[in-house]
Amino acid sequence: MKIPVGFKFGGLACGIKASGKKDLALISTQQPAVAAGVYTQNVVCAASIDWNRSITPSADFRAVLVNSGNANACTGEQGAKDNQVMASLVAESLSTVAALVKPESVAVLSTGVIGHALPMDLLTTGISSVAGTVGDGEQNFIDAAEAIMTTDQGRKVASREVQIGGQAVAVVGMAKGAGMIGPNMATMLGIICTDAKVNADQAAAMIKSAADRSFNRISVEGHTSTNDALVLICSGQVGEAIQSDADLAVLQQAIDEVCLETAKMIPADGEGATHLVEIQIEGASSDDDAEKIARTIASSNLVKTAVTGADPNWGRIVSAAGYAGVPMDLSQTRLELNGFPIFDQGEPLSFDAKQVSDAIKDNFETKVALVVGSGSGKAIHWTSDLTVDYVRFNSEYTT
Amino acid sequence: MKIPVGFKFGGLACGIKASGKKDLALISTQQPAVAAGVYTQNVVCAASIDWNRSITPSADFRAVLVNSGNANACTGEQGAKDNQVMASLVAESLSTVAALVKPESVAVLSTGVIGHALPMDLLTTGISSVAGTVGDGEQNFIDAAEAIMTTDQGRKVASREVQIGGQAVAVVGMAKGAGMIGPNMATMLGIICTDAKVNADQAAAMIKSAADRSFNRISVEGHTSTNDALVLICSGQVGEAIQSDADLAVLQQAIDEVCLETAKMIPADGEGATHLVEIQIEGASSDDDAEKIARTIASSNLVKTAVTGADPNWGRIVSAAGYAGVPMDLSQTRLELNGFPIFDQGEPLSFDAKQVSDAIKDNFETKVALVVGSGSGKAIHWTSDLTVDYVRFNSEYTT
Repeated sequence: MKIPVGFKFGGLACGIKASGKKDLALISTQQPAVAAGVYTQNVVCAASIDWNRSITPSADFRAVLVNSGNANACTGEQGAKDNQVMASLVAESLSTVAALVKPESVAVLSTGVIGHALPMDLLTTGISSVAGTVGDGEQNFIDAAEAIMTTDQGRKVASREVQIGGQAVAVVGMAKGAGMIGPNMATMLGIICTDAKVNADQAAAMIKSAADRSFNRISVEGHTSTNDALVLICSGQVGEAIQSDADLAVLQQAIDEVCLETAKMIPADGEGATHLVEIQIEGASSDDDAEKIARTIASSNLVKTAVTGADPNWGRIVSAAGYAGVPMDLSQTRLELNGFPIFDQGEPLSFDAKQVSDAIKDNFETKVALVVGSGSGKAIHWTSDLTVDYVRFNSEYTT
Repeated sequence: MKIPVGFKFGGLACGIKASGKKDLALISTQQPAVAAGVYTQNVVCAASIDWNRSITPSADFRAVLVNSGNANACTGEQGAKDNQVMASLVAESLSTVAALVKPESVAVLSTGVIGHALPMDLLTTGISSVAGTVGDGEQNFIDAAEAIMTTDQGRKVASREVQIGGQAVAVVGMAKGAGMIGPNMATMLGIICTDAKVNADQAAAMIKSAADRSFNRISVEGHTSTNDALVLICSGQVGEAIQSDADLAVLQQAIDEVCLETAKMIPADGEGATHLVEIQIEGASSDDDAEKIARTIASSNLVKTAVTGADPNWGRIVSAAGYAGVPMDLSQTRLELNGFPIFDQGEPLSFDAKQVSDAIKDNFETKVALVVGSGSGKAIHWTSDLTVDYVRFNSEYTT
């Protein structure tokens, strides 16, 4: 993995998590950088989300601080104050006599339990420690990627290297997420870093486009978090300012790929998941309609449990498509499961149920390919299956 | 239970279900009756739904035939033909030399596995048998109510008696449903019978209104069936034609109550359910917004599993409300669980978690009361919790 030029990473345990696992990450740039973000659509959102929305897009960006173990959501005015203190502490740590860094140059991401005040004493010490240990090595990057995890089974990272204007540009990304939200739950976070030189408007357009093709196409149970955030940071330390559409497209492609690779790791690591389910829709009236059908299928507990049970249950899939609230033409509807045609023109085909079931059982990825008519609309979505372990994990509660 | 005048009921096993349980019900009127229905919004719908939509509202109605164990959905042209044969066989059985009954006077409801052709030989014999055994006793009514069941643990029936114009009018209802759909799954059906005298337009308005307040406010997992149907039949054998708004309101109230009582039995009998969850929303901008919030909370697997685990998890409930896609004012948001205030003005209250948890654990009904602002919009919704048994039941599959 080639770490992009101009970044420093760090991650350590500051004591938020009782387990003693890493819970604080810092990603900083050595010079003012460009940054843009996309944030949760939930009207109930954390203090950090309001803060980040107000400071991005930015052409004077210097760092993102991430704490895990406490989401600082539903914490009222105190939460907003604490968030600002965190940004200020990071800004101070980056300031020099020659150059004062403003709190508004620092984004904050939080994930973990909600409704609890942050332990600011631990964070104050922690921010000082992590600021002193950041570095530009791959291990520093990995430390940061591990410090943002909550219920994740493992770190979620990806990287690409592309040539733009004769220069080797690096893009790296880290993400976290396994379930969506709740006092004992998680959130989706993503941080993408590149040394390419783009302006704030370009960065904002690129991360929005990448999110629409990746993090907005995944779900575990569909419960939107109060803290979801995806941030793109561009240090601009490699090459000239990117101007041409062709060069922008190369960078966009690399960012898309890093986003998609890390995004797909989330449902693959979904709480209790035994399958990653890919849902491909074609033939809808529009891409939006196709996306609605894909999401409706992905949200059906009956579809999810059928995959868990390796049940080639075309009825649950086709009927879920039918209540997506958009047109579909049953007479032209065709379904393949893991490549096996099992439904066509409104009726089930004759197929070897054991063979299709075995194909689901023996593969971690289940591919649902559904044609719903003759339109040009298409979409793809990834989700987890629904298992006994998911229910156990999310209903375990003892007072 | 007072059986309304002018109806005959019957139910028996004709052999569709391998278990030998009852699978064919007939409800007929002795004279031409008024009937109206509301049907699934799923664009993938069964042959019977198309048929019923074309023949209701009706002022020349005579019977509804219900078969369970086979939904006759996704069965193409053969399914439509079979459905018409069923209606014709019932019509013939009701015809006399003096009065020929048309197939268009007979509704057909089907529920059970989808994608399989109906066993028409068994049904032909069965329709003849059930037509010969119908009667107006309470046991006949119960036989019919049991014959419409699939995965239901028990029959779902309710009745009311009201005075209209000095006459005792009876309303009885039967429903079925426990999970939504799939080759191994179920459907929601409801049949309401009254001896009040109303016209077809009145009946159509009344059943639509009753459905909106009952069967449209419940969910198990939110997967809309291909076969959902609710039919109101009015024999008109008691009293004069109802004209006044006051009298109509009395009848509407009785129909509403029978619908609501039977509708709530569905999530209470939800597959694997250990709790019936009542979600009350107040303070929304409109009733529609409140309904969207209620449905979003009811559809959250994290909320459902929290109830299963007796976890007073305000974060999952409040954050689910936040992504319903409608306005809410967090600073005015207030949540009570089983009467205990646990969240107010955007922040969790201090509460005895064990006490609230015990209140969830010790009661079959969990009451979620959420105020989301100062608007006048309100709604109520009932759903099941999500348990390990639900997942087991719906993921059991062996080839």
